[in-house]
Amino acid sequence: MEIKGFAFSAVEAAIKKPGRLDLALIMSEVPAAVAAVFTTNRVKAAPVLLSMERVTNGVARAMVVNSGNANACTGSQGMADARETARLVAERAGVAEELVLVASTGVIGKPLPMERIRPAVPGLFETAAVTDLDGLARSIMTTDTFPKVASSTSEAEGVRYTIAGVAKGAGMIMPNMATMLSFVVTDAAVDPAYLDMVFRNAVDSSFNIISIDGDTSTNDTALVMANGMAANPTIQAGTPEADRFEKLLREVLLSLARQIVRDGEGATKFVEIRVTGALSDADAKKAAMAIANSLLVKTAFFGQDANWGRILAAVGYSGAEIDQDLVALSFDNVLMVRNGVFVGGDAEARGTEVLRKNEFSVTVDLALAGGSATVYTSDLSHDYVSINADYRT
Amino acid sequence: MEIKGFAFSAVEAAIKKPGRLDLALIMSEVPAAVAAVFTTNRVKAAPVLLSMERVTNGVARAMVVNSGNANACTGSQGMADARETARLVAERAGVAEELVLVASTGVIGKPLPMERIRPAVPGLFETAAVTDLDGLARSIMTTDTFPKVASSTSEAEGVRYTIAGVAKGAGMIMPNMATMLSFVVTDAAVDPAYLDMVFRNAVDSSFNIISIDGDTSTNDTALVMANGMAANPTIQAGTPEADRFEKLLREVLLSLARQIVRDGEGATKFVEIRVTGALSDADAKKAAMAIANSLLVKTAFFGQDANWGRILAAVGYSGAEIDQDLVALSFDNVLMVRNGVFVGGDAEARGTEVLRKNEFSVTVDLALAGGSATVYTSDLSHDYVSINADYRT
Repeated sequence: MEIKGFAFSAVEAAIKKPGRLDLALIMSEVPAAVAAVFTTNRVKAAPVLLSMERVTNGVARAMVVNSGNANACTGSQGMADARETARLVAERAGVAEELVLVASTGVIGKPLPMERIRPAVPGLFETAAVTDLDGLARSIMTTDTFPKVASSTSEAEGVRYTIAGVAKGAGMIMPNMATMLSFVVTDAAVDPAYLDMVFRNAVDSSFNIISIDGDTSTNDTALVMANGMAANPTIQAGTPEADRFEKLLREVLLSLARQIVRDGEGATKFVEIRVTGALSDADAKKAAMAIANSLLVKTAFFGQDANWGRILAAVGYSGAEIDQDLVALSFDNVLMVRNGVFVGGDAEARGTEVLRKNEFSVTVDLALAGGSATVYTSDLSHDYVSINADYRT
Repeated sequence: MEIKGFAFSAVEAAIKKPGRLDLALIMSEVPAAVAAVFTTNRVKAAPVLLSMERVTNGVARAMVVNSGNANACTGSQGMADARETARLVAERAGVAEELVLVASTGVIGKPLPMERIRPAVPGLFETAAVTDLDGLARSIMTTDTFPKVASSTSEAEGVRYTIAGVAKGAGMIMPNMATMLSFVVTDAAVDPAYLDMVFRNAVDSSFNIISIDGDTSTNDTALVMANGMAANPTIQAGTPEADRFEKLLREVLLSLARQIVRDGEGATKFVEIRVTGALSDADAKKAAMAIANSLLVKTAFFGQDANWGRILAAVGYSGAEIDQDLVALSFDNVLMVRNGVFVGGDAEARGTEVLRKNEFSVTVDLALAGGSATVYTSDLSHDYVSINADYRT
């Protein structure tokens, strides 16, 4: 698939260890409108601090990203390294330094190996490094087991355009897009202020409704660049074209978000958690996130145990308003709990059947009012422990 | 050890399965002043609801407790069963029903097997059932691997008294004493209003500063009964006797709390988390709890990986005020981070040595002001996943 005016390249800089692509570049032929959402963690990696500053320009030409090292908790040296990486790219590309953004993912607290990054940068501009979205997605993987790519095509006033994106995730996903990088590009022409608004909304209803392990990283970055090379009339807020663009953007981000959950560290289950009947949508999200983040719930999913009691307990401490005598709970379409108590009969056996599936839903109806929320999560397995106990070795 | 006027007994009612003591009784010869702290979970088990109501009397004679079944999410049948259990004990003991409290721990959502509890109650009053604190502690174990007992003796105006307690914990410990039962008895005479105040403080600085897995249960109950049989002049607030009593009570509770962490499900490490230099004590506790509850931190502890970056990341999302350029971090006495960056040298090797120990401390100094907090936690191991994936089977 072609996204007009964007080029991707990736090289091996042996940042953590040799043997894989770990330095990548997204380059737009022309200045592109840019919007981004960054980690809410108070401890922010150097590339996050630098990109936060530069994205306020609203325009960018390039994003250079490395895996294998987060360049976080690296002090002033880390900031200097992030700036230098961007400058090296800017010089080669012949663009202003301020138009180059940076992102990093990997181990926290080790200085970037600039002695290996410096000589690797020129390679990003050679034909041999040119790659497709899949290659780009591969080069930003850390503990991911598969590259995450999504794209979709539509028209604005008869002009075809594409939105495409890559993501890396795996562990530490929640709340608010933890250890997550996602880069989305589109050749549509989009009004910059509208792009910023619509991208934040799309992130909220995609990356911010998934949860793997409850941790939030120092490096999260989700970014969109719109270069207008499709030559459509610029998409403006409040038009039918904007509605279509928004829907498409959310679709791409949600696909990436779901892929991230499916590839949660050690995950064997993909679970959709729906809470309905809450006092408000915010209450519903609190309850759904408490379920999604409960270790007891997640280990029960791994054990294929229809342990609805742990789910109700999680709702109980979530902070959401609840009357325990009104609650209903289902696994897929199997009703387990009505008015706060087990329905009996063969529900246990039928619920257990549902839990044996690789993908299922949990619905909790609080029966108080109309608030609702859906989040996605995975189970907690032995492999999660192995992956994270041995990560740096 | 004797605690004057208290008797303990335990029998097998085969509540979950046969082969162990699972129904126990704590009985005071005379009405005792009582104070208790219960789960903050909005979903409360029937015995919690009943005991919350009865403890407001300020006086009690007995606590009957079962393991193997939580009697939670059991609706009106659950309330009836909790009441009946208390009534059966009250009738046998010849005391008013309102003076009998109840507690349960175990699986959520299954009705109490009253057909097995009813015939087992009389046994609690037979000589064969008489047990010591250790036997009492054993009878309330679920996934605990050892019974948890603590006691201490002091004097009030020349009269000797004892404070002794048992606890069960294991998983789901935090915040606010999750899936935790603790029963403390003393033969001291203590002013009831003072007892209530001092017990809440002691719970706050013991059971509420430990964390195993971040879940909060439906059944938590911590209770103290003071029957005055030591015949000391009643301990009143604001006296030197009260100071001594408070110190002793906290010591007993803290010992039980530390035993709970040491026996965290699958735990291989006991870790003291100290945060200093915070804007306030509350901020320090937020930061310490975020570290204690981070899965990434806990799996790194299990992997004996001196991964200080994950610890700083947890502080970063804790909600505590932080300036990442000021932070210092140590494992025991090994300084790893100064001004937010790794100190270099042989710190990595020395830090890793510390992490190999079974017990160590993590100190994070935020260098902002004088707020501090200490919490205790364990690591997250493969066994935690196994225990909780297979719990109901």
